[in-house]
Amino acid sequence: MSDPIDFYFDFSSPYGYLAAKQIDGIAARHGRSVTWRPHLIGAVFPTTGSKPLLDIPLKGDYARRDLPRTARRLGIPFNLPKQFPFMSVAAARAFYWLSDGDPAKARELALALYDRAFGDGEEISNAESVVAVASGLGIDADALRAALNEPAVKERLKAEVNAAIERGVFGSPYIVVDGEPFWGHDKLAEIDAWLESGGW
Amino acid sequence: MSDPIDFYFDFSSPYGYLAAKQIDGIAARHGRSVTWRPHLIGAVFPTTGSKPLLDIPLKGDYARRDLPRTARRLGIPFNLPKQFPFMSVAAARAFYWLSDGDPAKARELALALYDRAFGDGEEISNAESVVAVASGLGIDADALRAALNEPAVKERLKAEVNAAIERGVFGSPYIVVDGEPFWGHDKLAEIDAWLESGGW
Repeated sequence: MSDPIDFYFDFSSPYGYLAAKQIDGIAARHGRSVTWRPHLIGAVFPTTGSKPLLDIPLKGDYARRDLPRTARRLGIPFNLPKQFPFMSVAAARAFYWLSDGDPAKARELALALYDRAFGDGEEISNAESVVAVASGLGIDADALRAALNEPAVKERLKAEVNAAIERGVFGSPYIVVDGEPFWGHDKLAEIDAWLESGGW
Repeated sequence: MSDPIDFYFDFSSPYGYLAAKQIDGIAARHGRSVTWRPHLIGAVFPTTGSKPLLDIPLKGDYARRDLPRTARRLGIPFNLPKQFPFMSVAAARAFYWLSDGDPAKARELALALYDRAFGDGEEISNAESVVAVASGLGIDADALRAALNEPAVKERLKAEVNAAIERGVFGSPYIVVDGEPFWGHDKLAEIDAWLESGGW
C-alpha cells in the first residue's frame, strides 16, 4: 500500500498543471509519495484518434470555460499561453535529465515550468525558454542546453513515453494509485477518498 | 438563482446512468429542481470527431474499469448490457412523449429504463423493450407503441437534440447550472459545491 503514486502529465496540459499544484499535497495527507512522470500526450493521439483538447469543437469551448472556473475555485492562478497547444518535448527532456540524480529538483523544475506556462501564460516550448526557467532555479544552463540535444536524453524520454502508452496512459493528468488508474483532474477528490479509505 | 438545473443525458450512456441516480438528490439538497433532457450523443460525434466511449482504444479500457469501480463507491448496481453501445432513440422518444403531460412519470420511466439497461444489463434499444418497461409503470402500451412512430414525436426528439447541440452539449451527462456547463459524472461533487456556495 505504500508504493509511490504515479503522476502522468504533459507539460502542455492545462489540467495537468492544475493537478500538479495539488497531487503532492493530497498524497502527503495520506503519508504517500508521488513519482512524477511527464509524457507526450500527442504520441497517443494516433491510437485514441484524439487531438489537442482545445482544438476539439464544443469540447474545446467547454474546456476554455471550465479551466479558469476550476482554477478560481482552487485559488490557482491560470492563464492560457497565447501559443497553445505547444510542444513540450524540451520541458520533458529537461525533467528526466534531472530526475535520476535529483528528483526533488526535477519536480521543482516541473512546477516552475508549469507556473510559467499556465500561471503566467508564457512560452515554455522552445529549449531556451526551458533553460531560462531552469537557470532561475540554479540549474547549470550550459549543461542543460547540451543535454537537451544528447541522444541518450532523447531516448530516455522516448522510452518513458512508450512505457506510458504501454501502460494505457491516454491523457493528462493520469494518476495510478495502488494499480488503479484515475484519469482527469476531476478525479482528484476520488483519489483523495481512495487513499483515505484504502479503496473500495 | 432558482432556475431548474438542465440535466442532459443519453440513455445509452453509462455515466449518464450513474448521474441520473444522483442528480435529483443533489438538487433537492439545495432546494433546486431538475429538468431532464435526453439527447442523442451520436448526433454530435461528426462535430467533435468522437465516437462511443467504450470503442475508443485505451480510453474504452479505462472506462470499463472506472465504471464498475465508481458504481461500487456509490453503491449503485452496475452491469454493462451485452449489446453496447446501443440505439437510444426509442427510449428518448418515449420520454418526450410523456414529459409534457406528466414530467414526473417521464422521469420515472427514464430511471426505469436506465435501471434496466445498466442496473440489469438488459436490452432497451428496440421499441418493444421500451414499451415493456413503460407498461410495467402503468403506461398505456398501445398508445406508446403508436406514439413511437408518430412524425410529431420523432420531430420533437430531433428538435431537442438540435437544441442541445446548439447549446454546446457534447457529452453525457452534461449539466447546466445557472448558465454554467459541467461535463461528466466526475463533476457532480463540484456541482454540489457550486449549489452550496452559490458559485465562485
